[in-house]
Amino acid sequence: MEVYLDNAATSKPAEEVVNAMLKSLVELYGNPSSLHRKGVEVEREIKKIRRLVAKALGCNEKEIIFASGGTEANNLAIKGFIKANSRIGKHLITSKIEHKSVLSLYKEMEKEGYRVTYLDVDAKGFISLQQLREAISEETILVSIMHVNNEVGSIQPIKEIAAIIKEKNPRTGFHVDGIQSFGKIKYSVKDLNIDSLSISGHKFHGPKGIGAIYIRNGIKIAPLLIGGGQEVELRAGTENVPGIFGLGAAINILLENYDKNITKIKELKEYLYKLLEAELENIHITSGINDDYAPHIINVSLVGVRSEIMLHSLESDGIFVSSGSACSAKKKGYSHVLEAMNMKEDYIDSAIRISLSYTNTKEEIDYAVEKIKSHLYSLRKIIRR
Amino acid sequence: MEVYLDNAATSKPAEEVVNAMLKSLVELYGNPSSLHRKGVEVEREIKKIRRLVAKALGCNEKEIIFASGGTEANNLAIKGFIKANSRIGKHLITSKIEHKSVLSLYKEMEKEGYRVTYLDVDAKGFISLQQLREAISEETILVSIMHVNNEVGSIQPIKEIAAIIKEKNPRTGFHVDGIQSFGKIKYSVKDLNIDSLSISGHKFHGPKGIGAIYIRNGIKIAPLLIGGGQEVELRAGTENVPGIFGLGAAINILLENYDKNITKIKELKEYLYKLLEAELENIHITSGINDDYAPHIINVSLVGVRSEIMLHSLESDGIFVSSGSACSAKKKGYSHVLEAMNMKEDYIDSAIRISLSYTNTKEEIDYAVEKIKSHLYSLRKIIRR
Repeated sequence: MEVYLDNAATSKPAEEVVNAMLKSLVELYGNPSSLHRKGVEVEREIKKIRRLVAKALGCNEKEIIFASGGTEANNLAIKGFIKANSRIGKHLITSKIEHKSVLSLYKEMEKEGYRVTYLDVDAKGFISLQQLREAISEETILVSIMHVNNEVGSIQPIKEIAAIIKEKNPRTGFHVDGIQSFGKIKYSVKDLNIDSLSISGHKFHGPKGIGAIYIRNGIKIAPLLIGGGQEVELRAGTENVPGIFGLGAAINILLENYDKNITKIKELKEYLYKLLEAELENIHITSGINDDYAPHIINVSLVGVRSEIMLHSLESDGIFVSSGSACSAKKKGYSHVLEAMNMKEDYIDSAIRISLSYTNTKEEIDYAVEKIKSHLYSLRKIIRR
Repeated sequence: MEVYLDNAATSKPAEEVVNAMLKSLVELYGNPSSLHRKGVEVEREIKKIRRLVAKALGCNEKEIIFASGGTEANNLAIKGFIKANSRIGKHLITSKIEHKSVLSLYKEMEKEGYRVTYLDVDAKGFISLQQLREAISEETILVSIMHVNNEVGSIQPIKEIAAIIKEKNPRTGFHVDGIQSFGKIKYSVKDLNIDSLSISGHKFHGPKGIGAIYIRNGIKIAPLLIGGGQEVELRAGTENVPGIFGLGAAINILLENYDKNITKIKELKEYLYKLLEAELENIHITSGINDDYAPHIINVSLVGVRSEIMLHSLESDGIFVSSGSACSAKKKGYSHVLEAMNMKEDYIDSAIRISLSYTNTKEEIDYAVEKIKSHLYSLRKIIRR
């Protein structure tokens, strides 16, 4: 039995996604910049998909830029905004629990002379709106806060954050890393009242290598990649057509079954949560099952057994989970997220992340928890000796 | 009949490429950064492909970085080098006939305070080594010269250029845009003695959205995209696994039939060249058939008929060619390449680019030339009236 429970790291492309990509490879293989039919027919499809992405995010198609993935999307939205709006000042704000593609960028900005406020989070993984309010000044160029944390699933109150930012300094930009929230929570960027948001195809059964950015109309962004003028001069380079087609198909699936799939993931998570609670002793479930947490992520500390050991034990049973965040799982050391949450050392050491998709089943969860239980108890015995 | 003669704009992915991509989507869908088997198996494939790219370019696998395409490859190699080596000075050199992804970047560098020498080209599309030699100073950070020009196919003498640069200033970096040369000319980056070279998957029957960069061991480059530390910290972001798999398959095909395929393209080009010469009056073929020109590109001016009109006329017969360079074909106005070659206005106005692949046939060329001839003669009559 193979049970993939690492959907926040990456998800299996849906059949429709694969078929859409095939179409771009076998049939619609023209260069969208070509003036002839082979180009025009591809350009037309890209336009349709751009409209679809805009619909899914609740914005205008002109506010959508395609990029090579979540990292480029975050980099362009953040660095591009800072570069184009540097006259505002030298101050930036983010949180301590952002994804590496945001945090590393802010570290880089510090080297370039910017002052950065890294907002704390509480033990549950939430920033303090009061601390945010106090941090924003006349000098603040940009605030960047992730919507859903990729390790523990905490959902930051984006709409309230946006309101505070716009109230304190209307010139301050607000970027939201939406990579873990898109498809898992229903929202509209216009309703959230934010300036930019990034998404990544492979997190919702689309392909790797493609992402998109919402950039609010009127917001100035400097491009990172310069060349043939694609994506309204904001992101040059021949379009990743297979990627865009795959992204389109993934969003199509998402829009068709949004509520149904979210409900299913929520049920699965609740089922998993309760089973873990009922079956295992001396564990700590960091992620809640209330609406403050995303429906697909459970971070659980299996006290006494190091994350990597549990990960590889489960792997031998065909169960795939993550220790910390997959995107930086290879970097040794503590999870910066759990550390920022001020978690006890033995909780951090033994934390695994289980991340669900609507494609998972209760039977898979039964199997996974059974195996977690058996490994946990036998490993605890061995370690105790 | 459908005759695709726009292979320098983009090429149809080979069947093996499609299958390799399918494998990454259906089977090997893990995140290469994941610690478990689902990640490790993908990481292992990527390593194999990196070795293959290195073999094709004649370098070490550690000198290969994957990027989202030719534009990012050029941007990273150029901007990354300039940023990391800015202590050398404030001077840059390139040619007037580079691709937009290089030229626009140099224009941007001028805005940032760098002094740029744009080398002239002669009427045949070649830079002057004398002018290059004189331009290089103690202050020169980087020289960037394309290997094969995408509009006319002229091959710059890269090895001689490298020797001149290293002789005049050993600290000056040398980047080569190899996007149109890779797969069409056999070379090794070590033999050429260059510091970096960019390639793009979709120019040789691989997919769009993937490229690679050779960066010579020891050369310092600052990353453009920051995040999870992928690609030895030089290019963050979850790898475009389908793209990398496709790129690998395309290079595999290339390596298996290198000489055979190049010979076939050369024969097709010579056949086309002679047919155009024999069949059409009052035309100007800019690209030569000697070894100074790439085997896949013919730029021909069909005097009296504007490029776009010919392009659309041929399109109605299922024949696809390009007017100017496809990557910027939508930008109105003159070809900057033909202009730099000091070409007569009516030659520039009527220039079309025919670009071949080994997948083309003599029958297709017969058909294309027949249709070009018939359109040319009837359009000339209409226009003359």
